[in-house]
Amino acid sequence: MAERVYFFDTTLRDGEQSPGCSMYLEEKLKMARQLERLNVDVIEAGFPIASEGDFEAVQAVSVQVRKPTIAALARANRLDIERAWEAVKQARKPRIHTFIATSDIHLQYKLRKTRAEVLAQTIEAVKTARNLCEEVEFSAEDATRSDIDYLAEVLTAAIEQGATIINIPDTVGYAVPMEFGPFVRDVIAKVPNRDKAIFSCHCHNDLGLAVANSLAGLLNGCRQVECTINGIGERAGNASLEEIAMAIRTRKNVLPFNSEINTEEISRSSKLLTNLTGSFVQPNKAIVGRNAFAHEAGIHQDGILKNSLTYEIMTPQSVGLSSTTLVMGKHSGRHALRNKFEELGYELSSEELERAYFFFTKLADQKKEVYEEDLVAIIQDGMKIVPDVYRLKFVLSSGGSQAISSAAVKIEKGTDSCVESAVGDGPIHACYKAIDKVTGMPGRLLDYTVNSVTRGKDALGEVFVHVEFENKNYTGKAASVDIIDASARAYINAVNKAYTEKQRSEAKKADKVAES
Amino acid sequence: MAERVYFFDTTLRDGEQSPGCSMYLEEKLKMARQLERLNVDVIEAGFPIASEGDFEAVQAVSVQVRKPTIAALARANRLDIERAWEAVKQARKPRIHTFIATSDIHLQYKLRKTRAEVLAQTIEAVKTARNLCEEVEFSAEDATRSDIDYLAEVLTAAIEQGATIINIPDTVGYAVPMEFGPFVRDVIAKVPNRDKAIFSCHCHNDLGLAVANSLAGLLNGCRQVECTINGIGERAGNASLEEIAMAIRTRKNVLPFNSEINTEEISRSSKLLTNLTGSFVQPNKAIVGRNAFAHEAGIHQDGILKNSLTYEIMTPQSVGLSSTTLVMGKHSGRHALRNKFEELGYELSSEELERAYFFFTKLADQKKEVYEEDLVAIIQDGMKIVPDVYRLKFVLSSGGSQAISSAAVKIEKGTDSCVESAVGDGPIHACYKAIDKVTGMPGRLLDYTVNSVTRGKDALGEVFVHVEFENKNYTGKAASVDIIDASARAYINAVNKAYTEKQRSEAKKADKVAES
Repeated sequence: MAERVYFFDTTLRDGEQSPGCSMYLEEKLKMARQLERLNVDVIEAGFPIASEGDFEAVQAVSVQVRKPTIAALARANRLDIERAWEAVKQARKPRIHTFIATSDIHLQYKLRKTRAEVLAQTIEAVKTARNLCEEVEFSAEDATRSDIDYLAEVLTAAIEQGATIINIPDTVGYAVPMEFGPFVRDVIAKVPNRDKAIFSCHCHNDLGLAVANSLAGLLNGCRQVECTINGIGERAGNASLEEIAMAIRTRKNVLPFNSEINTEEISRSSKLLTNLTGSFVQPNKAIVGRNAFAHEAGIHQDGILKNSLTYEIMTPQSVGLSSTTLVMGKHSGRHALRNKFEELGYELSSEELERAYFFFTKLADQKKEVYEEDLVAIIQDGMKIVPDVYRLKFVLSSGGSQAISSAAVKIEKGTDSCVESAVGDGPIHACYKAIDKVTGMPGRLLDYTVNSVTRGKDALGEVFVHVEFENKNYTGKAASVDIIDASARAYINAVNKAYTEKQRSEAKKADKVAES
Repeated sequence: MAERVYFFDTTLRDGEQSPGCSMYLEEKLKMARQLERLNVDVIEAGFPIASEGDFEAVQAVSVQVRKPTIAALARANRLDIERAWEAVKQARKPRIHTFIATSDIHLQYKLRKTRAEVLAQTIEAVKTARNLCEEVEFSAEDATRSDIDYLAEVLTAAIEQGATIINIPDTVGYAVPMEFGPFVRDVIAKVPNRDKAIFSCHCHNDLGLAVANSLAGLLNGCRQVECTINGIGERAGNASLEEIAMAIRTRKNVLPFNSEINTEEISRSSKLLTNLTGSFVQPNKAIVGRNAFAHEAGIHQDGILKNSLTYEIMTPQSVGLSSTTLVMGKHSGRHALRNKFEELGYELSSEELERAYFFFTKLADQKKEVYEEDLVAIIQDGMKIVPDVYRLKFVLSSGGSQAISSAAVKIEKGTDSCVESAVGDGPIHACYKAIDKVTGMPGRLLDYTVNSVTRGKDALGEVFVHVEFENKNYTGKAASVDIIDASARAYINAVNKAYTEKQRSEAKKADKVAES
């Protein structure tokens, strides 16, 4: 009898805290809604004590995303736990996830505490959390490098205090499956009240073994896996949700588990995350890489034509890749566009449709054929993540070898219109300097990437930028057949996020002053 | 007692045949020399029957790369095997690697042969190969989906005929470690003459388990692992060499093996492959991703400061990442530049140094600080992979919203100089159309990527293009602070490869005509 496995997605917490993956409030919400469609069991939405932004995101996800359990992370102390509860309490199914390290190396160097002190703190923390919330998860950080008997003692105590989920993290990505499996089995065996909790594993990918370790965990008693879309996360990332889900789906005979994951939403979830963060997956990434279902070698192609089973263990359809390449022409109307987007799994508000249609007609004028990938790229421009405070009305820039690059921009804000120019090292530099002059908010470019969306010299180029404004990082993106146009709009997208966040926090400060 | 494990690198064969990873002859040689420095035991250099280009690459690697064994792939037939031998016979340690599928699904749908026929063909093929070459490797394609007794029968016959290495591939990436380990152990046990061969495994990553399966193979009797740099290869790729090597190095207590891999060359090997193919690794790729050694979360940073062991199981130095960021100024001379490149592991010819110095001085004029990453990027422009038949002397291009983009280029070929212009959809399109007018060789742009090398609006941008000329794909790359300049030079880099290869093949045809 196949047993049910629970998917705990931490894309918005462990994933989001990795370099280049930070998300803006509305982006987190968009991702959370997609995770709901993917049908994960638990969304860990953030670490509320870490920042005001994290708190708000957890709160917003709790209020707006109703199907999955929403978890909030907290260190094992009253302040963290109360803050986590405050953020998550409006969720339909809230969970507080509290953790403390149990390995001697962490006790000695990081916590500077004795084993007895950590045990006492665990008891106190779980008790505090459980008084607030029905569902409490306890994680023993660096479990795989902990003394097994001490670890079992801590876990037993956590369950006694009412923890309902017990997580065994391989925090440093140190485990290999042949030891992690038996380790999990042995720990669970040493916990006498094990029947009162669900065991979980949380594996990191430093040695490339996170997914294999997660499967070993499942085969040895875990029933929850903690993972992220595209395997994003600290350092080499977390276990990939899509790989675990498809391994279970594809290899039922050796992995006798059921999950509720809607695997047909995998591809869309992966692309959305990439679009929101600009953190790309490599072409050969399992399940979601561009080449994952591509068969290049002549021998393979021949085999595939004769029978797809010769080389294909999963179908592209099972992860939501449609096999048709859909082409639209310049005379397609709004209605047809809305239908196509729905086929692609995107439900658009009227406003979003209007924006997307604007970019679509512009694109159809410039480009002979509009592909599915193009539509996915332009919908980014149509997604109303942030108000268009600054709007680019015109940009012209030039560059080349030996040339002095210059740019002119015309930008509107409200009813004001402003024209500026600048010279720079290259046309993009010139352009960004001109924009900075208009906004008066100089940004520091941390990362700049362009990718062609489809083939051909007239292909759409998608520009992603990471920009720092006043020590905070924002992403911006835009797509256009013109690289200057896309680059300018991507930058302004980041400007608008920074500006809006600044306004919000100033409004909040004013509220507090008014209250006091 | 730790046992010796042999690393069989197939970056140039299984890796190279994946989409976007094809390499030009001189690029393969450059990669092969780096693999020699990495100290792999075997380099599979290509599949000589597949194309003239593959044959030449295997031959060139055999002649020029003397330390490792050089293997050439061949299907189990006389023609393939003789062609493979022809290509590899000048190697100091040649190996013929012949394969045939053994799973019923492949027999039925791809080969349309009976088990008896495949057994007979195996015997014939290994005998043929062994008559030519001392070292013969036999692979049973799709081994993991084969009947275990039949598989053992085929492997036994191969060893009887003199195969010295027996490979068990998980061709479709179907296995999970908990079954692959026992499967390998059981197959080997069923081969009575097993002591006369070294067993090997070759795992694909479709379910994200290639590395875990390879380790399971080693723990169950394999002593060779087949893998690629960055895990490139068909579909989701092959097992990553760097992950297997570092797992073995880091977890000696559970993986009691020794390898001769010079792990300090891992980072350089990974970067070189990316630079040659434009096939990027994602930031969270284990071992070689940009974030693999980055600790973002405040808690982690605190732990790392207190004791690096709290979160770090390997040092960045162990994979050849230097921790210093080295800055050079515009007054640094050629000698200093050569020394810096040597520190970074690049030995430059005088001509290469001259080119690199040219780009360095240009860059130092435009950019306040030149970082280590910048030097690695400009050395690409300094690497003499292909003759500069067409040389860009000048480019100017402009673009923007609502603008008609136009470009002017001045290109030299020999003593001729040609100026052309074009309009296009965006400045890059215009530029490439102008270049096509000069060369008369219209290219089809398959892929276009820009990445910023370091931070700041004046950062160097690295442009990679994949261009199709006359149905063959070529990569081109260049770095510049000006995106137009870099884009034009990257495209011309691809043009020069296409042109040179065309000249070579025409010269060969002329030779053949002269001979006949």
